[in-house]
Formats: sequence, C-alpha cells, structure tokens
Amino acid sequence: MNIKILKDILSANDQIAERNRALLDKHKVFALNVMSSPGAGKTSLILDTIRTLKKRKRVGVIEGDISSTIDAEKVKKERVPVLQINTGGECHLDAAMINRALENMPLEEMDLLFIENVGNLVCPGEFKLGEDRKVLIVSAPEGDDKIYKYPLLFHLADAVVVNKIDLLPYTTFDVDGFSKALKGLNQKARLFRVSCTTHEGIEDWTDWVLSTMRPPKQTSRRQPRP
Amino acid sequence: MNIKILKDILSANDQIAERNRALLDKHKVFALNVMSSPGAGKTSLILDTIRTLKKRKRVGVIEGDISSTIDAEKVKKERVPVLQINTGGECHLDAAMINRALENMPLEEMDLLFIENVGNLVCPGEFKLGEDRKVLIVSAPEGDDKIYKYPLLFHLADAVVVNKIDLLPYTTFDVDGFSKALKGLNQKARLFRVSCTTHEGIEDWTDWVLSTMRPPKQTSRRQPRP
Repeated sequence: MNIKILKDILSANDQIAERNRALLDKHKVFALNVMSSPGAGKTSLILDTIRTLKKRKRVGVIEGDISSTIDAEKVKKERVPVLQINTGGECHLDAAMINRALENMPLEEMDLLFIENVGNLVCPGEFKLGEDRKVLIVSAPEGDDKIYKYPLLFHLADAVVVNKIDLLPYTTFDVDGFSKALKGLNQKARLFRVSCTTHEGIEDWTDWVLSTMRPPKQTSRRQPRP
Repeated sequence: MNIKILKDILSANDQIAERNRALLDKHKVFALNVMSSPGAGKTSLILDTIRTLKKRKRVGVIEGDISSTIDAEKVKKERVPVLQINTGGECHLDAAMINRALENMPLEEMDLLFIENVGNLVCPGEFKLGEDRKVLIVSAPEGDDKIYKYPLLFHLADAVVVNKIDLLPYTTFDVDGFSKALKGLNQKARLFRVSCTTHEGIEDWTDWVLSTMRPPKQTSRRQPRP
C-alpha cells in the first residue's frame, strides 16, 4: 500500500513537472536542476556561472533549502532574479514547489534558470521538476566512493561536476578512477573538474552550459525527453 | 492523509526502536547512531574510535548505505563484528532494519555499537533506531552554514563532531561562529574538533564516548530518555 501511494505521488509530480516544462518552453527558459550533498558547492558553482555568463545570458535562480535564506541572499548580490523555497523539512524539491515559484518569477526576462535542490544525494533523484538537464556536483573532500554508495543520482545526471579540485592534494579522491566508474554507470554524463575557489575549470563548464542550451542540429531547441 | 500515514509510520518505527533499546539494554550494549552528509567522515571516525578503544571496549558496527559494502569491508579489517545494511534506495535507516541486524550480531560479545546511518543531513533525524546517543558529524569543507540549513539534526544531536580540521586553513569554516550557533540551537550537545587524517582531537572524542557510556552518578547506566 505504501508503494502504491509513493507511485501515485511520483505520477502526480511528473504531471506537474510536464506543466513546468511547458511553461519554461513557452518562455524559452532553459532549466538546470543542480543537486549534490550538503556543502559540495551548488551555490558557489551557480554564482561562478552567473558571473561568467551574465553578459551573454539572462540568468535566474530558484534556491531550495529546508530552512534559511542564506543562499538566496548570496545570489541576490549578483542582481539576478532569485526566489527561495523553504521546504520546511522536505528532503527534496518537487514539481509543485517549482510550479508555485515559476508563477512568481519574471520568466520573460530569463534565458537560463538554475534550480538549486536541497543538499541530499538520495531523495532529489526521484522527483522531476520540469528541468532540461540534471547536474550533479561531488566535491573532492567527500571522496570518490560516493558513486558506489548513491548510484541513482550519478546514473541520472547529464553532467557531473567534481568541485573543490584545489583540495585534491589533501584528499584521497582519485579523479581518473572516478571518471572510469562514472563511464561504467552513465555513458552520457559529461564530467567537469572545477574549483569555485580558484575558478579553474569554470570555463569548460560554462562552455558546456552554453552548448547544451543550443543543440545545433535540431529544429527544436530541446533534445528528446528521456 | 499523507500526514496521517507518516505519523503511523513514525509511531510504528518508535515501537520497534523501543524493542531494540530493550534488547541492547539486556546485553549491556551502548549504541551510537552516527549521522552526517555523504563523505563527512562517519566511517573514518568509527575506525579511529575502534583503534583507540578496542583494548578497552568490545566494539561492533552496523553499516547503513543505499548500496555497496565499501564501508563494511573497511571495518572488517579491524576484526570487529560488522553487518552491512543496504537500504536499496531508502534515504535513512529505520528501527526495523536495525532490529533485523541486531538479531544477527553477537550482542553478548559487545560493549559499544556504532550504527552508521545513510549519508544524509535530513531524513535520518525523524527515525529513532533505539540508540543511546545521536552523533552528528560535519566536515570543515562542507561549510559552517549547515547548521542553519539543516537544523533538525543539529538540534537532536548529543555530540557534534567537526571533522577534517586539517583542512580548515583551506576553507572558510569559522569554528567559533559555528560553536556559538550550536549553543543557540542545542545547549546539551558536546562539540568536538577532530581530524581522522592527522588524528588530532580523537582522544577528546573517545574520552567522551567512554564517559557517556558510564554516567557516574546514576543508578542505571542509562540517562533518562528525551
């Protein structure tokens, strides 16, 4: 019975996610769902991306947290539209939360929307939000074994960003081994190595964001849905 | 309706947690529920504690992970009883999982049981396992703002361990500010600063483990339940 209820919840969520997707399509806004453990650097990567791209793309941000507005305050300083969702205990964002947020954002003034999910390597994986791409961040100090322990998010990701590579010398994270493990689990995911402290690798990452926003050989700007 | 179901689930869980507690009491096993984000150092702290205490206490470990047996393999090398629970998607351990695990562990040969929860700063907080103390680890590279974003676990913890203090010089983690924030949220929680890489602070931590196992001025070895 609990399994049936979970299925119903996920199915209801997917329907709202489709509506979000249609709304984003209508306004030609490309959305990235950014997920990671707490403290892996979601906000830092979003801030670095805004600073790098803001002359070329109009960016907006939805911040998801259990509580607090710390991240939204940081983003606000970049003078881009930002909306904070406090889930009040829920361990992930869902499509209905995003739907309410989208109704309160100036979509006509945006090209690119970052949705920063709640810091959690498990729960966000099951809930589609209507995003175009899923981005997963793993930080060097967390360790390279996370892909074995939390495989779902690594399996679903369109891009995996190894952040805090400036700390690699002080950790046991094996980037090559991690890269092989990722290829074994998810052949489509692009892998990036960045440091939001030194800004190393940020341009490779933002180049990918720009290129995935505009698939060159398709009549629609969207790739087929998985 | 969903709220009612959640309440029923939590109530059923608490009843099983009470049974676990009775079983542990019967065998005079003191249990610590160790929680943190992925990669904050739960297994490393447990390994350091085993190495420090194993001549004085007989330790056992239950490892909780979505998948893989990586952590159990590491613990097994210390030649202590270890049992791996793979939750298969569940974002936290629950009392029923622990109940089945306890039935398969040599409780009569143990004084101290570490239960390593799934790496998650949200979901484990709602599920009692029958433990004596809740231990929360936060690692320096995660950032000192986690207490504001994930307050429940910090509120519930009996001990908070700041791990990876060897990386403090490369992060913006403010230990004093964090300590004040913790006092504001949870006056009972003891704060420890450790590095499982350099082993700094481990003795303070293991001294606390030994002292909390034996509250000196009580007729029962247990403190009142919260």
